[in-house]
This record gives sequence, C-alpha cells and structure tokens, in this order.
Amino acid sequence: MTALTAAAIAELTVFAGRLADRAGDAILPHFRNLAAVDDKSAAGQRYDPVTVADRAAETAMRALIAKTYPAHGIFGEEHGHSTGDSPLTWVLDPIDGTRAFITGLPLWGVLIALNDGTAPVIGIMDQPFTGERFLGTPDGASLNGAPLRCRPCPTLDGARLMTTGPDLFPSAADLAAFDRVRARAQLTRFGGDCYAYAMVAAGHVDAVIEAGLKPYDIQALIPIVQGAGGIVTDWQGGDAQQGGRVLACGDRRLHAEIISVLAP
Amino acid sequence: MTALTAAAIAELTVFAGRLADRAGDAILPHFRNLAAVDDKSAAGQRYDPVTVADRAAETAMRALIAKTYPAHGIFGEEHGHSTGDSPLTWVLDPIDGTRAFITGLPLWGVLIALNDGTAPVIGIMDQPFTGERFLGTPDGASLNGAPLRCRPCPTLDGARLMTTGPDLFPSAADLAAFDRVRARAQLTRFGGDCYAYAMVAAGHVDAVIEAGLKPYDIQALIPIVQGAGGIVTDWQGGDAQQGGRVLACGDRRLHAEIISVLAP
Repeated sequence: MTALTAAAIAELTVFAGRLADRAGDAILPHFRNLAAVDDKSAAGQRYDPVTVADRAAETAMRALIAKTYPAHGIFGEEHGHSTGDSPLTWVLDPIDGTRAFITGLPLWGVLIALNDGTAPVIGIMDQPFTGERFLGTPDGASLNGAPLRCRPCPTLDGARLMTTGPDLFPSAADLAAFDRVRARAQLTRFGGDCYAYAMVAAGHVDAVIEAGLKPYDIQALIPIVQGAGGIVTDWQGGDAQQGGRVLACGDRRLHAEIISVLAP
Repeated sequence: MTALTAAAIAELTVFAGRLADRAGDAILPHFRNLAAVDDKSAAGQRYDPVTVADRAAETAMRALIAKTYPAHGIFGEEHGHSTGDSPLTWVLDPIDGTRAFITGLPLWGVLIALNDGTAPVIGIMDQPFTGERFLGTPDGASLNGAPLRCRPCPTLDGARLMTTGPDLFPSAADLAAFDRVRARAQLTRFGGDCYAYAMVAAGHVDAVIEAGLKPYDIQALIPIVQGAGGIVTDWQGGDAQQGGRVLACGDRRLHAEIISVLAP
C-alpha cells in the first residue's frame, strides 16, 4: 500500500494525464511522417523519427515536471535518471514500441509511471493515434474513463498469450522457456509491446511474457494490470518493477501455472 | 489492364465503400465486447465474437450486392462462392486478422475486392475502429482520400519486413525460406495481417511475406499495393490472386532480391 493520500493520488493522476497530453503533442507530428524522412535524407543526414519524437516528448514531460514538482525525481529512457528531494519519481518511456512506431502500426504507447519510492502507484499507457488512454491507480484501471477488468482464465490451455517478438528474448534459455508456455497456450500472438499489457487489463489477452525489459518499459503497466485485477511479477513471482523477465496475467491461477512452466 | 471503363470503375468504387460501411456497422458492436461473451457463456453456449461478426458482415455485404448488382458473382470467406452472369466478382473477407480481433488489437480489417474476371481491380482494406480506409484502384492508392506511395528500398539489408506470425507458415520449408529472408532484413515485425500490406502501400514497411493464404485474404490488397507503386506476386514472381505463398514489396529491386533468397 502506498503512503500517498487519496487526495495526493487524485492530484498526481490529473498531472500524469497532462504529461501524456504533452507527450502525444510532441510525438504525433512524427508518426508516419515520410515527408520529413525524405527531406532530411536529401540533405545527407539520416532522419530518425523515433529518436526525434522520443527526445522531444521526454523533454516536454521533464520540463513540466520540473516546473510543477521540482522536488520529484525523473527516470526516463532518453535523458536518464535525476533524483529529487522527494521519494516520488516519474518513470517515463516516451515511445514504448519502437518497431511498431517506425512500421506505422498504432501499437506503440507513451508510458508514464509515478513511483512512490517503493512501487509504481499510478500508470498511464497513452496511444494518441487511436485516442486511447489506459490508466491504473490504487482505485482501479480504466480506458478513457471506463472501468477495465481482466477476464477469468484459470488454465493455460484456454489462454491467449502475447509477446512482442521471438527476437527480443535476450537468451536462448529465455526463448525456450517462453516456447514451453506457448506450446500449451490456446493462442499466441506476436507484436504487442505495451499494448499487449493494456489488453490483459481490458480482458482480451490472458498473459504477456517478456524478458530483457528496462524499468521504464514496465512500471507504468503494473498499476494498469493490477488495477484491473491482474498480476505482474518476474518469472519467479517476485517484484517486476526493475524489468528483466516479466510475466503479466489477468488470472492468478493462470499466473501460478505459467510460473511452473517457465521454471527450468 | 481491365476492360472496365473509368466511369464503371468510379461507380463500383463508390459502391465498394458502401459495402465497407455496412461491414463496419455489423462488426464494431462485437469488437472488444466482453459483456456479450459473458452473457452467452453464462447460458452455457460459447459465444464466438469473430464468427458472429464475420457472418453478420458478410451477410450484410451479400444482401447489398444482390440488390444492387444481381448479376455479379460473390466469393466470401463465410458463405462461399456464388457465380453470376457477369464476369465481375466481389471477393470478401469480412474480418481478416482473427487473432488480432479476439485479442483486441486494431490490426484486423474488412477486405473487399472487385475482380473483373482476370484480376482484382478495386480493393478496400477498412479498419473501422481506427477509422482508416485504404483504397486501391487503377488510378492509385489512398488512405481516407490522401494518396499513398510505397517508399524506395532497393536492398534487403535496409528493409523492414513483416509477416503475421511464424506459426502461420504451412510447412517447415516455407518457414525456413522466410527465415533466410528475415536473417538479411534490417528489421522484422510480426503480427500484421492485412494491416502489414496497407503499411507497404503507405511506405512504412518494405516487404510482406506469407504463405497459406486464401484468395479472399489477398485480392483486396493487390490493387492497394499496386496502386501505391508496389508489386504483389507469389514467391516465384507469378500471379498472387489465388493466394498461397505471397510476397508484397514496395520496391521492385527489393522484390527481385527477395525472390532469389526465397528460392530453394
């Protein structure tokens, strides 16, 4: 349980939404923007729309945090970790899902977490192209204000499993463990990034298994899945907030079964 | 070249848009509709949102075709092939991307092709959740009315490659051929379905490689990719309209290189 008061959480949740607005404004002009790619390429300089959009969005979010809550810490993908006088830290990934972004698919997202010094307590996954904002707080999870609930799915043989891609497991042993789960699942879908976790919260996907994640890849998604009644841990059932190997499930019975299948 | 006049193509293109409207109206109430799933499950009857939406959309499209152009043939995924007195046939896949649909991802699409008896000449890929309609005709390709062009990408080492998933190749030899191409590509992304072909036309993806397709999985996408300056063939460079092994590229130089890598 967080030590933050309900009033503090309400205020910080509104502020997190303002951060997502700023990030979306900075990113959308670069999404599917081939004219810009062609222009810069012609000048002999390679234009990387992800990098430009990533940095612009994180800069915009950092500026708003520094102005509004100068004591808060910030840990972002692009500009690193700045500690603050407060135990509160904003954990930011301006564009999670780089491959989705550059291939034009609307499955990337802006990830914003507020960590209270012990765990992420507020999380946002914002997809500005589709206009979908997934929010998780201690009060629950929602999509554009409508409550979300994970669906019951007690066993792996009835489960819909997702992961971003087989190439993203950092070791052959990790991929083999994933493949053991995949062989028993009802359906496996590749290519989700942060969107896959949002679909667990929304009750359309039952499990996401990944490895090699950074803290900013997962912290925003933990309150969303937990707020919808699901569970996010590492592959041994421990704390997932530092990233690495991550398992998110909508049903705790399924979570227990997958942990046993992942074990070497 | 089609024997259809420009006036006939213009009229039939407008009509194809009406078909897409009808299909979207039939499908969207079932997308992410967990309330309906829960209700029917409680009654002991398994509710399959894909099947229900698929059938409702195809029925709606068939009714409009029968009323407007009773002589035209219809070839749909759900209700089979009805030949007409005209050489013109509508080739329909109400929901391409079943796994995307049931996992809540907005990458499925309504596929509508008009085949003139020799080849598909009009194609629509409609994504009603995001509000994106991709259209291809002999006059070109567009997204919601804005022209689309494939991007230049002359060589595989600079190419963004997509396929729906490794499980969907019907033989180990097909998967091995795909993996040879994947090993040389700049980036491979899984999980596209029809959306991947639309992204080739939009210049964000350079190649899509699939196998085991049905005619209705690919016919609507051929005019879209061709209209944007790309090429769609089988893995030997032949006609792709019957489905099977399909290769879509935005650049003919890349297409030639991939054909050589796919060859046993």
